[in-house]
Amino acid sequence: MPVKAISVLGSTGSIGTQTLEIVDCFPEHFRIVALTAGNNLDLLVRQITKHSPELVALADTNLLKELDECLSSLPLSDRPQRFPKLVGGSDGICTAASWPTADLVVTGIVGCAGLLPTIAAIRAGKDLALANKETLIAAGPVIIPELAKSGSKLLPADSEHSAIFQCLQGTPWNQDVTRLSTGIATPGLKRIILTASGGAFRDWKAVDLGKVTIADAIKHPNWNMGKKITVDSATLMNKGLEVIEAHYLFGLDYSQIDIVIHPQSIIHSMIELVDSSVLAQLGWPDMKLPILYCMSWPKRLETPWPKLDLAEVGQLTFQTPDKNKYPCTEIAYEAGKAGGTMPAVMNAANEQAVALFLEGQVSFLEIPKLIEAVCERHQSDLEKNPTLSDILAVDIWAREAVYQSMINLTQRTIHVL
Amino acid sequence: MPVKAISVLGSTGSIGTQTLEIVDCFPEHFRIVALTAGNNLDLLVRQITKHSPELVALADTNLLKELDECLSSLPLSDRPQRFPKLVGGSDGICTAASWPTADLVVTGIVGCAGLLPTIAAIRAGKDLALANKETLIAAGPVIIPELAKSGSKLLPADSEHSAIFQCLQGTPWNQDVTRLSTGIATPGLKRIILTASGGAFRDWKAVDLGKVTIADAIKHPNWNMGKKITVDSATLMNKGLEVIEAHYLFGLDYSQIDIVIHPQSIIHSMIELVDSSVLAQLGWPDMKLPILYCMSWPKRLETPWPKLDLAEVGQLTFQTPDKNKYPCTEIAYEAGKAGGTMPAVMNAANEQAVALFLEGQVSFLEIPKLIEAVCERHQSDLEKNPTLSDILAVDIWAREAVYQSMINLTQRTIHVL
Repeated sequence: MPVKAISVLGSTGSIGTQTLEIVDCFPEHFRIVALTAGNNLDLLVRQITKHSPELVALADTNLLKELDECLSSLPLSDRPQRFPKLVGGSDGICTAASWPTADLVVTGIVGCAGLLPTIAAIRAGKDLALANKETLIAAGPVIIPELAKSGSKLLPADSEHSAIFQCLQGTPWNQDVTRLSTGIATPGLKRIILTASGGAFRDWKAVDLGKVTIADAIKHPNWNMGKKITVDSATLMNKGLEVIEAHYLFGLDYSQIDIVIHPQSIIHSMIELVDSSVLAQLGWPDMKLPILYCMSWPKRLETPWPKLDLAEVGQLTFQTPDKNKYPCTEIAYEAGKAGGTMPAVMNAANEQAVALFLEGQVSFLEIPKLIEAVCERHQSDLEKNPTLSDILAVDIWAREAVYQSMINLTQRTIHVL
Repeated sequence: MPVKAISVLGSTGSIGTQTLEIVDCFPEHFRIVALTAGNNLDLLVRQITKHSPELVALADTNLLKELDECLSSLPLSDRPQRFPKLVGGSDGICTAASWPTADLVVTGIVGCAGLLPTIAAIRAGKDLALANKETLIAAGPVIIPELAKSGSKLLPADSEHSAIFQCLQGTPWNQDVTRLSTGIATPGLKRIILTASGGAFRDWKAVDLGKVTIADAIKHPNWNMGKKITVDSATLMNKGLEVIEAHYLFGLDYSQIDIVIHPQSIIHSMIELVDSSVLAQLGWPDMKLPILYCMSWPKRLETPWPKLDLAEVGQLTFQTPDKNKYPCTEIAYEAGKAGGTMPAVMNAANEQAVALFLEGQVSFLEIPKLIEAVCERHQSDLEKNPTLSDILAVDIWAREAVYQSMINLTQRTIHVL
């Protein structure tokens, strides 16, 4: 296997740091050519020193000077082998996403901010390890045709979609799986079953969810992830977003995508074939495995990671999701079925509602109410075949609409008082 | 997919009748060209009427006349479309196994009686759906080179090996998997984990196994199988035999084959890849699925069989096998590692010991003792590179040795009394 050159978008985040850990483990297989980050300059400087990328992009152009100074003032022994080219802003991130020497772009940017760089990577013909699910959810109708045009491969770095992808390698229509971009259902595949840990509140009663604090919501029982995704796990919106992602990735109808609650997060997801056989991918809950599989696919690289011991796990349990406790998954299924700009609206509304929750401005139970209200308002403006600018426009609109809905909610609450 | 012509060895047994059920469901995909049976003539006549095979073979030549008369005396409306050619004895079974028009031979004969027909099928270049695991266990060193020579494909119809085979389709070295006969370890595969229901006595304490009756031992909690295999499940020898089978089928070292007790029999077995990812095949416990997969492979045919519902199952549990309770698996691992003629001796000793148990001549706990005693006696005569006649000779020797060991056991018991 030739050395694969990697560009990491969001290198100081959860996905980014784990990607760099993997590169550290396999210097004979991977090297870093570009990094992008937000404002964690300390960590970024250490990453630059270690990996000597050709390019570094910062989202905030104002921080470029500080980064330049940091790198220049390093003692000689700590300086990277080469001084990287420094660029900034959204254009800079897109430059990193389409950097000429990169073979694979790992998109670890959270939220819709990943959209333009993802499109830049596809247009440059790069393969993508997609950890930024919001991009595909919001812009599926734009991204799928772009993929078909460029021949870029979209490899899922989400643990659930990686599990599906791994299981699908075993279908006789293997070659279709490698062209995830076709949006054509894989023959032989009947349905997929996404497993959900149940998030932070899986053992809470629905009636108690009114008392949820921010601290409660950002404690995930199994996975070590960023705050926004951890709240999405707690509302089960994460699973709803994954349903829409799976629809675009694997070309499946929404009726072919099911969810089962599996608190241990050992089975990462399953496929059911037409003859009733079910294939599952299992492992300890660790994002490094799906990230590595994107990087090594179609091969597998030997790791020293602990082997799964089911006798040690003892039991795996399963239950049907409680729709009353988790209204977000139904909202997502409905938005997905509506199609067009609706998933973009729902996704933006969710990002905004979660941000407001994390700022302490709305309660946990108000998250689904805000999203639902915004989706309802969008119903009459739904664009079935959106362009990229339609999607960017509804994304901005939906975030503003969440504020408006929050004010309405507050006024109603005051009125009731 | 062109219509596949099937020869069924052991058509009135458990595997045979389920194979014919599948053929019934998919007349556009499969047709029967040859059947072989023991002495259940009533059922055989009904099968002949329904499927109109070109050839029918009976193990017992003395029954040929009776079968001929049965078929001739059928009312016109019940007669098969064509009167089959009737043959008898071991040669007759081999004729069915190598029948010119057959594409696939389903070997549902229990025990070492399946050996010569299996070799006849391989030499005739037929693909095999192998439900008769004893054949490969006893004669692996002879069968593997024959497969390499003829190009026949050995497709596992055992649920556990089918699970492994299904999971292996997803490895990038797919093409090696289709040549199971190479005996070369599949790159990327680290180990396989065979699941074991724990058999009839999984909830019994080891100390209570002295009280086991024949009726207790032939009640399997999950699977509907023949008596001999059900007793093998109860002793866990079944799993030991599968370990040796897996060694030959997938070219794995014994250190790469593990067993885990999984009472619900929903996960049918697993593979662990070098990167620590585990793939599993799941389904309701029903032999029809692995049989169908052998018949449809590499495709999958749509069935109306009930879909697996893990929320309905609720939980899957796992535990490490108790070596004291199940000495047979250790005996099998040791016989496998010794190689050469030892697995043939162990397999024959097991068949004989189980037969004696089913006749009420030895107790349940004496089964492993008899097998172990016979394997120990064979140690000094072990042939590392056996020929087919070596294997047939030790098979006969081992069965006699079981009798001798039984007498020794009885004498020791009398002596102690």
